Amino acid sequence: MEQRARVLIDCPDTKGLVYKVSKVFFELNLNIDSNQEFVEPEHRHFFMRSVVRGDFEPNQLEHSLKKELDSSVNIKVVPPAKKNIIILATKESHALGDILIRHQAGELDANIIAVIANRENLKELVEQFNIPFYHISADNLSREEHEDLMLEKLSEFKFDYMILAKYMRILTPKFVSKYKGKIINIHHSFLPAFIGANPYKQAYERGVKIIGATAHYVTDDLDEGPIIAQDVISVNHRFNWRDMQKAGRDVEKIVLSRALKLVLEDRVFVHGNKTVVF
Amino acid sequence: MEQRARVLIDCPDTKGLVYKVSKVFFELNLNIDSNQEFVEPEHRHFFMRSVVRGDFEPNQLEHSLKKELDSSVNIKVVPPAKKNIIILATKESHALGDILIRHQAGELDANIIAVIANRENLKELVEQFNIPFYHISADNLSREEHEDLMLEKLSEFKFDYMILAKYMRILTPKFVSKYKGKIINIHHSFLPAFIGANPYKQAYERGVKIIGATAHYVTDDLDEGPIIAQDVISVNHRFNWRDMQKAGRDVEKIVLSRALKLVLEDRVFVHGNKTVVF
Amino acid sequence: MEQRARVLIDCPDTKGLVYKVSKVFFELNLNIDSNQEFVEPEHRHFFMRSVVRGDFEPNQLEHSLKKELDSSVNIKVVPPAKKNIIILATKESHALGDILIRHQAGELDANIIAVIANRENLKELVEQFNIPFYHISADNLSREEHEDLMLEKLSEFKFDYMILAKYMRILTPKFVSKYKGKIINIHHSFLPAFIGANPYKQAYERGVKIIGATAHYVTDDLDEGPIIAQDVISVNHRFNWRDMQKAGRDVEKIVLSRALKLVLEDRVFVHGNKTVVF
Amino acid sequence: MEQRARVLIDCPDTKGLVYKVSKVFFELNLNIDSNQEFVEPEHRHFFMRSVVRGDFEPNQLEHSLKKELDSSVNIKVVPPAKKNIIILATKESHALGDILIRHQAGELDANIIAVIANRENLKELVEQFNIPFYHISADNLSREEHEDLMLEKLSEFKFDYMILAKYMRILTPKFVSKYKGKIINIHHSFLPAFIGANPYKQAYERGVKIIGATAHYVTDDLDEGPIIAQDVISVNHRFNWRDMQKAGRDVEKIVLSRALKLVLEDRVFVHGNKTVVF
Repeated sequence: MEQRARVLIDCPDTKGLVYKVSKVFFELNLNIDSNQEFVEPEHRHFFMRSVVRGDFEPNQLEHSLKKELDSSVNIKVVPPAKKNIIILATKESHALGDILIRHQAGELDANIIAVIANRENLKELVEQFNIPFYHISADNLSREEHEDLMLEKLSEFKFDYMILAKYMRILTPKFVSKYKGKIINIHHSFLPAFIGANPYKQAYERGVKIIGATAHYVTDDLDEGPIIAQDVISVNHRFNWRDMQKAGRDVEKIVLSRALKLVLEDRVFVHGNKTVVF
Repeated sequence: MEQRARVLIDCPDTKGLVYKVSKVFFELNLNIDSNQEFVEPEHRHFFMRSVVRGDFEPNQLEHSLKKELDSSVNIKVVPPAKKNIIILATKESHALGDILIRHQAGELDANIIAVIANRENLKELVEQFNIPFYHISADNLSREEHEDLMLEKLSEFKFDYMILAKYMRILTPKFVSKYKGKIINIHHSFLPAFIGANPYKQAYERGVKIIGATAHYVTDDLDEGPIIAQDVISVNHRFNWRDMQKAGRDVEKIVLSRALKLVLEDRVFVHGNKTVVF
Repeated sequence: MEQRARVLIDCPDTKGLVYKVSKVFFELNLNIDSNQEFVEPEHRHFFMRSVVRGDFEPNQLEHSLKKELDSSVNIKVVPPAKKNIIILATKESHALGDILIRHQAGELDANIIAVIANRENLKELVEQFNIPFYHISADNLSREEHEDLMLEKLSEFKFDYMILAKYMRILTPKFVSKYKGKIINIHHSFLPAFIGANPYKQAYERGVKIIGATAHYVTDDLDEGPIIAQDVISVNHRFNWRDMQKAGRDVEKIVLSRALKLVLEDRVFVHGNKTVVF
Repeated sequence: MEQRARVLIDCPDTKGLVYKVSKVFFELNLNIDSNQEFVEPEHRHFFMRSVVRGDFEPNQLEHSLKKELDSSVNIKVVPPAKKNIIILATKESHALGDILIRHQAGELDANIIAVIANRENLKELVEQFNIPFYHISADNLSREEHEDLMLEKLSEFKFDYMILAKYMRILTPKFVSKYKGKIINIHHSFLPAFIGANPYKQAYERGVKIIGATAHYVTDDLDEGPIIAQDVISVNHRFNWRDMQKAGRDVEKIVLSRALKLVLEDRVFVHGNKTVVF
């Protein structure tokens, strides 16, 4: 029976990689629907994403590729199934709402398992969409105490990605390391400009003519993780920082949703502090 | 001795194309510096552009590829040499000037063999850059008479591409067919909006909030050829059509120069009325 | 008691207009929070939008302005109150959903009185937000019969603007004339390119490298009304028309919401077939 | 005889400013061709730029305005004459070339009096355009020694603005203070991201998906002066830092030329570390 899979490969570059991979596809009689490669020139690292179609077993394909290629090669054969995601939020509804609308319209290859927030005001919005909402207040708690409650709640679920849709809490290294490579954040500035608190206020103070938003993987270094997507809009002297904040919301939500789509389609490779996005 | 070449392949899609091409590269011990493929889904047409590096003869590589692949496959092995271009202009200097500056700075992989214009005012600018300028006036001539003079002059040169840098004359099918696939034009609108004369006036009359420019191959159908690149800028009610025209010049020159660079690097495949741009 | 109002003035340009208006403001001891003027140079038509603050009665201010200015001058003094809007939709949720989320977050100066659709699938989404949803099917009805039902339903409500959030029905002149100047549409192309049905398919066929969306007032001429806002995104040969459609939704919803905000803040003057947007 | 002038006013905001200014225009029987005001809300500072037309003497208009307004008000009446500019460069030709082409086409309201560079390679390009070129080498000189030579050369000229068209030397506070408010720089990044040396390398290291350029007034704080204009372009993982640098040149030159045009048309007010751009 014909099926489809995404083949994700990365390894140090050597001669013949494309040849060997395409040989396996050829011998298994697969169609290549799309194929993208990139060799990162600094470290000579090879990346490849193919979408193949044919009558095959994903395990068998992975096995054949592993046999053909070196043991240093990362190989993943991913059927295009829905991924499970958890969304963390605080009180703003624009980024969360954008994901909920897309999800309900069937536009996202994802199941939203839960929304967890440190404030309660988004409860109604989330439950409207028949998605479980959990309120874990941070009131009167230390950062660590609150995070422990969050981690406890999160441990109840199995998920592929955690999306910070304007979750306004700083995560500790302990938290981040537990979900390494799985947390995606939207930062409300054109990183690396305006790292840290209230970037719109910083942007206003600096008198910039363009503001932006950045979707990135979360690492231990605050606002320093690999960037997945960025976009900007023009502002002018008529914008005070609250106007910038309002205008910025449109970019934030579009950039986060765009990054989410890329990640759900397995189009993003992380390499050091950068991404390769096919 | 190590050298580099661009391998350009297109043909109806069949299984094993990537495999066969990469097999040839592998057997000739070539490094693949970059590699892009695309299968046009409507007509199942396959496109591939590879940059390979190694100790090889371009002719031998082309020969090996032809032996491996079907006779229906278009194969070109192009060494990254400078291409010869001719520029046609009328009286505006922005698009022409942008190319001249880039050329003088060594940014373009091209030799500008000549500039031919139907007005004389650009002569000084062009000759400043030590490039031959030919003035072929259209005064008191029919379109055909003027074109015959142009064709006569053009026949003196051997060139790869003819760039219409705001050449404000309509070309006849006779002219176009003579240089099929070699003529690149910048149209001063976001095609297909505002086909024909004075697009900025049309844009002003329509009250649009964004204007643009389009670089495209010239075909018999005026302003209907395959699009290579487009870009836009915002305007508002404060712009009259002359303001739009002035503002539009920045987009025109950037888009034309961007398209020229793509073409000079053999990144553009034409397929029917569309382009595949790697 | 201090209050605020928007003063909207337009008339044929004559000397002293700004002087006379600002004199009234000065004599009533008003603060000018913002002030924008524009003289359309072709027809010498004057436009002004001021936001004033002070201890005044809107009626009294309007009266004073009318006394000072010529009878040919259009003067409106608008307190910054919420406007009532009705949304028409068909089956796509992105533009509608974007407005609903903003509305629930308190971002829109509007009450959404009702959503009316010719399909039923958006019912759940709308009612989640506690907004009345009316389904008026067009099945087995002529355009006129369906419109009569729509007009009947619309006549039950008092509203300032009717927003076509991807309402995929063509309106008759009868319908449009009944709500002249009150209907705002989002067209899924960068007008005037791709007027008419399925612009994304047209865009794909033409091989464009940029697609866009246009928010405009609806007039008798389909897709020809005054443009309020436009925006674009880049596409490439990898996009088939369905991909363009998906990518285009982000632009559509942002452009429609941006136009809606401008209209709700009384920032848009219509003049002939164009807009002045302050 | 009818003439035209730009009236530039700024002062702490008080009631009646627009009234008083427009009263003077009215009494002198002037037409207002365009008029823009802005009150900076934080410090309640008022800005106004009017273009007036009529039969008047600029001095008399300035006098009348001064009589009507408070002594704390900055008033300038500027006839729309060409301004004198000096360009400083190093070795890159794109930003300089863009200005030279525009200048020769009569697009800039400026006389380019001289180009001064610390390298010699741009001499030919500049002299092609019949503009004096001065080479002031920095070889074997301390920063101060080189600047003294620059200052000496600059002291020979009378000019309104000094344009740093990729002048790759850091200016000392002594230099800057001598030409306070007159120096405009293009910084090759989207400030405040990537302050300092080699922003493209920094951008590449950080893995950003968008790069930009910033035109700003030069102050004592390196890369911290008031921003006039900014713009960006998209990049991806295929760009190494040299590719970013090449792509960035297009943005640099367009942004610098746009800022130059704004400044030459007296559209830019500096207020603290920000600009108001009409």
